[in-house]
Amino acid sequence: MERTLIGELNTKEGQEVTIQGWVSVRRDQGKMVFFDFRDRTGSVQGVVLPKSEAIETAKEVRNEYVVSVVGMVNKRPEKNVNAGVQNGDIELEVKQIEIISKAEIPFELGSEVNLDTYLDNMPFTLRTPKQKAIFKVQAEIIKAYRAFLNSEGFTEFQAPKLIGDDAEGSGEVFEVKYLYDKTAHLATSPQLYKQIMVGVFERVFTTGNVFRAEKHATTRHLNEYTSIDAEMGFIKDHTDVMDMETKLMRHICEHLRTTCNEEFKLLDAQVPEVGETIPHIKLREAQELIFKETGKDKRNEPDLEPEDERWLCEWSKREHNSDFVFVTHYPVSKRPFYTYEDEQDPGFTKSFDLLFRGIEITTGGQRRHNLENLIEGAKNKGLDPNNFSYYFQAFKTGLPPHGGWGMGLERLTAKFLNLANVKEATLFPRDINRIDTLLSTDKKE
Amino acid sequence: MERTLIGELNTKEGQEVTIQGWVSVRRDQGKMVFFDFRDRTGSVQGVVLPKSEAIETAKEVRNEYVVSVVGMVNKRPEKNVNAGVQNGDIELEVKQIEIISKAEIPFELGSEVNLDTYLDNMPFTLRTPKQKAIFKVQAEIIKAYRAFLNSEGFTEFQAPKLIGDDAEGSGEVFEVKYLYDKTAHLATSPQLYKQIMVGVFERVFTTGNVFRAEKHATTRHLNEYTSIDAEMGFIKDHTDVMDMETKLMRHICEHLRTTCNEEFKLLDAQVPEVGETIPHIKLREAQELIFKETGKDKRNEPDLEPEDERWLCEWSKREHNSDFVFVTHYPVSKRPFYTYEDEQDPGFTKSFDLLFRGIEITTGGQRRHNLENLIEGAKNKGLDPNNFSYYFQAFKTGLPPHGGWGMGLERLTAKFLNLANVKEATLFPRDINRIDTLLSTDKKE
Repeated sequence: MERTLIGELNTKEGQEVTIQGWVSVRRDQGKMVFFDFRDRTGSVQGVVLPKSEAIETAKEVRNEYVVSVVGMVNKRPEKNVNAGVQNGDIELEVKQIEIISKAEIPFELGSEVNLDTYLDNMPFTLRTPKQKAIFKVQAEIIKAYRAFLNSEGFTEFQAPKLIGDDAEGSGEVFEVKYLYDKTAHLATSPQLYKQIMVGVFERVFTTGNVFRAEKHATTRHLNEYTSIDAEMGFIKDHTDVMDMETKLMRHICEHLRTTCNEEFKLLDAQVPEVGETIPHIKLREAQELIFKETGKDKRNEPDLEPEDERWLCEWSKREHNSDFVFVTHYPVSKRPFYTYEDEQDPGFTKSFDLLFRGIEITTGGQRRHNLENLIEGAKNKGLDPNNFSYYFQAFKTGLPPHGGWGMGLERLTAKFLNLANVKEATLFPRDINRIDTLLSTDKKE
Repeated sequence: MERTLIGELNTKEGQEVTIQGWVSVRRDQGKMVFFDFRDRTGSVQGVVLPKSEAIETAKEVRNEYVVSVVGMVNKRPEKNVNAGVQNGDIELEVKQIEIISKAEIPFELGSEVNLDTYLDNMPFTLRTPKQKAIFKVQAEIIKAYRAFLNSEGFTEFQAPKLIGDDAEGSGEVFEVKYLYDKTAHLATSPQLYKQIMVGVFERVFTTGNVFRAEKHATTRHLNEYTSIDAEMGFIKDHTDVMDMETKLMRHICEHLRTTCNEEFKLLDAQVPEVGETIPHIKLREAQELIFKETGKDKRNEPDLEPEDERWLCEWSKREHNSDFVFVTHYPVSKRPFYTYEDEQDPGFTKSFDLLFRGIEITTGGQRRHNLENLIEGAKNKGLDPNNFSYYFQAFKTGLPPHGGWGMGLERLTAKFLNLANVKEATLFPRDINRIDTLLSTDKKE
């Protein structure tokens, strides 16, 4: 018999159906056996009556067994209706159970485990409703991201990850043994390729893995993550980029409200409201404000510290009722060589960070589009312009004023859902002591 | 004045507008100067009359200069109408030109150049209508790919590229110097993660870069490419996967027909028709056919050679009017350890290749879902099961019968457009002697 999805059972009352899925829970109750079955569309309760020909098999079946079940879809008696729960008003009276795959579980699914145990057992621990909700939300974020940019005339492109040299001249890069003993590196961002592509399509975006060889052990850093990037030509300045990102964030939030309502409820999180504009403040003004209000003098610091980011987000929420805030005009010294210096504010750049719920989720800004100016920027950072001759071709053959942003999909997901650690929003996190379980690399030592 | 996109000029007749874009061509004709301007939405002809205040600047402007132009949108006189060409019935009478960025080009854009020159100058050579058409088509393929799989209940996920060991135990892998002198590798496919995720979402897909450390110098191989992968649970056998891929290819083709008509025309290529089913044939039957029809005896070969793939595609076109053909049942010896062996046909697998216009574009099949059977498969390939303990967790905790496919986005694009070399459909190809121009790695030697 054709498989019926569990999500469609509520239209099959009084019919015999075949479902296929996993056993989430088995409960013995006297001579009857109850099950919660699940498939990709949801859950349903099954009951095996003592007289059912399935009763013997039912007693063998354990949690996480994969089964094919023939049963009758019955309405539950009024008193047993589980209101507000999927299929809470029906029940599957099990006629036959076929075991497709057996299972042996390390602990009960959904048990409270610490993060290391969770990560060490992800092929299993990812199966809980909460974990599935996190990665459903992540899939919807990236879907909304692409749909919005497509609607604004951006073209997607595929950026290489094997590169000659470190693009940004900043982050630490992983070295790769390339063919014929050449040395390549792993891209820390698609930045230079995005800019090249502005010369082709004006507006481009790309999504994909990037790599950072940093020995962090924090709740916000990863050694490999999904960077969702965009770049646009013919801008007035960085504020055009900020306006586009504001519309993007509004679109993503609207999409999440319509597609992930259940998931946000399950995770006890709220989709933020994004107004017509997001408040923005210059770094130096932000530091002045922090000094005035908290007495902490960071007015000469080149960047915000985590506690400053948290404070500014609280301020933005309090004063502007916004979960987001742009901070602009970071000093030239703290930004990559291609960042545009503000002629009106020498020493500071037309760049921005977007902060959200206490943390930076985007870095962006206007870029230098004039070749001489760009080369000067590289030299000032001690970089050898000869290393960038491929990239420079785009500028030599004519590029308009342009800018863009990059953001980490995992961090964005974590902040939307108020997760304490970015690793909870990552499949499968790489960090200082983890590549899966590192078993396979350990053996090589 | 607000920028008007060139694609909207045909609605602005008799109005003064500002356009911004590149100069594709400048032509002097007596005392007048003609231009072709382009932006991301298309091209338009501009004319600078001798009396125009823009005439002096117009004479300075060269190809690929980025300009902002104020002009009047005029109807062309009947005899000058360029029918069938975008904006062929209008002309921009230029009032002012502002040079935004100057340009210096290595050769005329669109000149016939050899592949190496093309690749060495991609930041410039990508700007021709043909190259833009190729990567527009590529963007639409991946968009259609995701949209179809979403509509079939597949969930997207992000697969890591830094892995402990070589997943497939076959292709050569690149080594990465990981943190604390550990050794990691670059994924040759997301295979094992896809299978893990079947336990979570049943149906999943992922798109992203994969890496092959092979010293190929062919028209069909790359050392880094975009793999578009899918995996689905609760299948009957490999034919369910083939059916899903048939529907996918039909959807992609329909999408290309509606969105990329101009691009296919420009590149002189046809979008193939995909029927209700795609013909399929077992490897041994195919070899028998080849022997019978050509006299070449390859009936004991474990795989098809390129000439066989070409012959089978011609046969499929001739006999079944199909540009596509599935070849199934490759021997166990030629397939990765996780491939399902056909109980009815021992020594052969429930696997398939999809051939399209003379070349394999997909490898797929059913996988082993029983842990003992999977471990046996690994051992038979001389692999140490201990290296796969993370992956095995998914099987230990219950996986249904499942299967899927992987395909290379660049190769698929190249075949849709009849391009001679896959590198023509790749941004930015990595091969035995190319990472961009390898300038930056050369200096390290």
